[in-house]
Amino acid sequence: MPESSRRGDNASISLFSLIFLAMVISEKALIRKVRLLADTAGNSAVRRGIGDDCAVLRFPLRRGKPGDTLVTTDFTLEGVHFLREWHSPESVGHRCLARGLSDIAAMGGEPVAAFLSLALPRDVPQKWVNRFSQGLLRLANKYNVTLAGGDTAESPGGILADIVVLGKVPAGRAVLRSGARPGHRIYVSGELGGSAATVAAMFKKPKRKLNPHNYLRHFFPDPRIELGRILRERKLVSAMIDTSDGLSTDLAHICEESGVGAELQEQWIPQASVGNARQKVGLELALHGGEDYELLFTAPPNRRIPSRIAGVPIKQIGRVTPPGKMFLVHQNGSRRELKAQGWEHFRK
Amino acid sequence: MPESSRRGDNASISLFSLIFLAMVISEKALIRKVRLLADTAGNSAVRRGIGDDCAVLRFPLRRGKPGDTLVTTDFTLEGVHFLREWHSPESVGHRCLARGLSDIAAMGGEPVAAFLSLALPRDVPQKWVNRFSQGLLRLANKYNVTLAGGDTAESPGGILADIVVLGKVPAGRAVLRSGARPGHRIYVSGELGGSAATVAAMFKKPKRKLNPHNYLRHFFPDPRIELGRILRERKLVSAMIDTSDGLSTDLAHICEESGVGAELQEQWIPQASVGNARQKVGLELALHGGEDYELLFTAPPNRRIPSRIAGVPIKQIGRVTPPGKMFLVHQNGSRRELKAQGWEHFRK
Repeated sequence: MPESSRRGDNASISLFSLIFLAMVISEKALIRKVRLLADTAGNSAVRRGIGDDCAVLRFPLRRGKPGDTLVTTDFTLEGVHFLREWHSPESVGHRCLARGLSDIAAMGGEPVAAFLSLALPRDVPQKWVNRFSQGLLRLANKYNVTLAGGDTAESPGGILADIVVLGKVPAGRAVLRSGARPGHRIYVSGELGGSAATVAAMFKKPKRKLNPHNYLRHFFPDPRIELGRILRERKLVSAMIDTSDGLSTDLAHICEESGVGAELQEQWIPQASVGNARQKVGLELALHGGEDYELLFTAPPNRRIPSRIAGVPIKQIGRVTPPGKMFLVHQNGSRRELKAQGWEHFRK
Repeated sequence: MPESSRRGDNASISLFSLIFLAMVISEKALIRKVRLLADTAGNSAVRRGIGDDCAVLRFPLRRGKPGDTLVTTDFTLEGVHFLREWHSPESVGHRCLARGLSDIAAMGGEPVAAFLSLALPRDVPQKWVNRFSQGLLRLANKYNVTLAGGDTAESPGGILADIVVLGKVPAGRAVLRSGARPGHRIYVSGELGGSAATVAAMFKKPKRKLNPHNYLRHFFPDPRIELGRILRERKLVSAMIDTSDGLSTDLAHICEESGVGAELQEQWIPQASVGNARQKVGLELALHGGEDYELLFTAPPNRRIPSRIAGVPIKQIGRVTPPGKMFLVHQNGSRRELKAQGWEHFRK
């Protein structure tokens, strides 16, 4: 059996045990049980996983130099980031980890280990927890991420998760938001607005259960790990961010960090198609809808960016300008200012 | 100005800004503002703090080998780990970080950076948040820990914090729970039961406000970072854990991980003195009360353990026995079994 497959299996066992056992036995016995399972996980960076005061990680050397360690942490809160009646437990688990993995992708990094802090109210059925774990672990296994620890507690209200993902990148090589320069081109992967369109569809008909397969980018977003790594390795990009807050807001982050302006071509922006009818989401959602977890990046004009990398389509959508506002250029040449519109997840 | 002092000041500014600004301005502006402040923080391990998709850390080399990275994550939830009417905001902030630092201490590590995920209900006043930050940062500054990132959200109910602490230790040198062997001696730092006695005092007279100075180990526990590091450097210890769950439970963790038994001498166990009258807490609380954040460790008999290290008293309390149960030996020589009694924090 290949190494990665073995690792995945064992990681599955350990998280299932962690959560299953948390419901029925004492923490002491829980920790012992889980540690025994997790120890066999085979991720050589994880020297010690669950079962001690800390996890111990060793990041591999590269040419005699230590790599840099990436750290990101993201809440997933019931009523803020998901609703139990709209999101399957598998989707909640998947999205919980995807948020962290996408941040690693946006730095051009490779994820190594995840830490899940999970607080559950007493009314959460065991089945929900099992399915949540399945969703989270399927994604962890796909990217060889080891669940190396975390914390559990009883929640005073609502399901609360906080995911920490650690990743690695060669020293000094993390792709920051601050490297965009006037004249660089602006690109985005995949399509935009699909996640926000899903939320809109759910608000429109709250009782109807959507088929997740028609709304994958919302329910099971695939973080662009491979793409981010390749862009960094080939030194194609000058600045990068993931589209978690929405194109207008995330582009504004790059502009602010880099001290530049930007101009987008309206007709170049790739609008997602969602639902059974694969309907285009429209410009507004593509511009401002969040949680698509695509990569938004800039590249110097002398870099040739392929139209597809690691199976993901890449489109140029505009260019970096000298310091100033962001603009949207219509096909007929007219320009209007593009303002960042923060994405507020959604609430009941 | 010395390096550490400069660092501390700037870290203070950045977290204050983070939280203060979170209340009044957009996340985008918040991130920009905080990053500018945090970037000057001067912790050389933190290459990039708040303001990008991930924090970037570089752990210093030791003799051409990378160190190991320690990771720990701990919830602090209102109604589970603290009550707003009993704990000052400064105490909540202090204890939130102390939990993570104590885990690093128990591995013999040095803390490097912390990540705070904080979700606040709308009714939390600005003043509470400012004072929480003061408590957390005072402790962070004391140990030169940089607040390098985190996440903020609106809480659907109750104040929710999750602290992640990253630390470092020379490769392969982390002190685990699994190294205790029969014949080794068992030691504990400081005094036990002080935190649990404080909780008992609050339950007894819920309306009376306790003076924190008389109950420091509960309200402002000092994690034993220096002690843990010295014990590891001098190779004095074979296994170590912090007393977060209570002596009986934490000793059981060591016994399980090491595959050994243990025998404690009842009269050797250092009982804390609390309150204005400095009253001894009694044996039960010293044995089973949690959250004292002292270090419990074992050492081979040929190691001389000083009676005080880094200003903290150390007492031998028993010895490691062959695999089997834990026992408590009375002064008259009679023995009774010592069972682990899990510490359940406290709830309303």
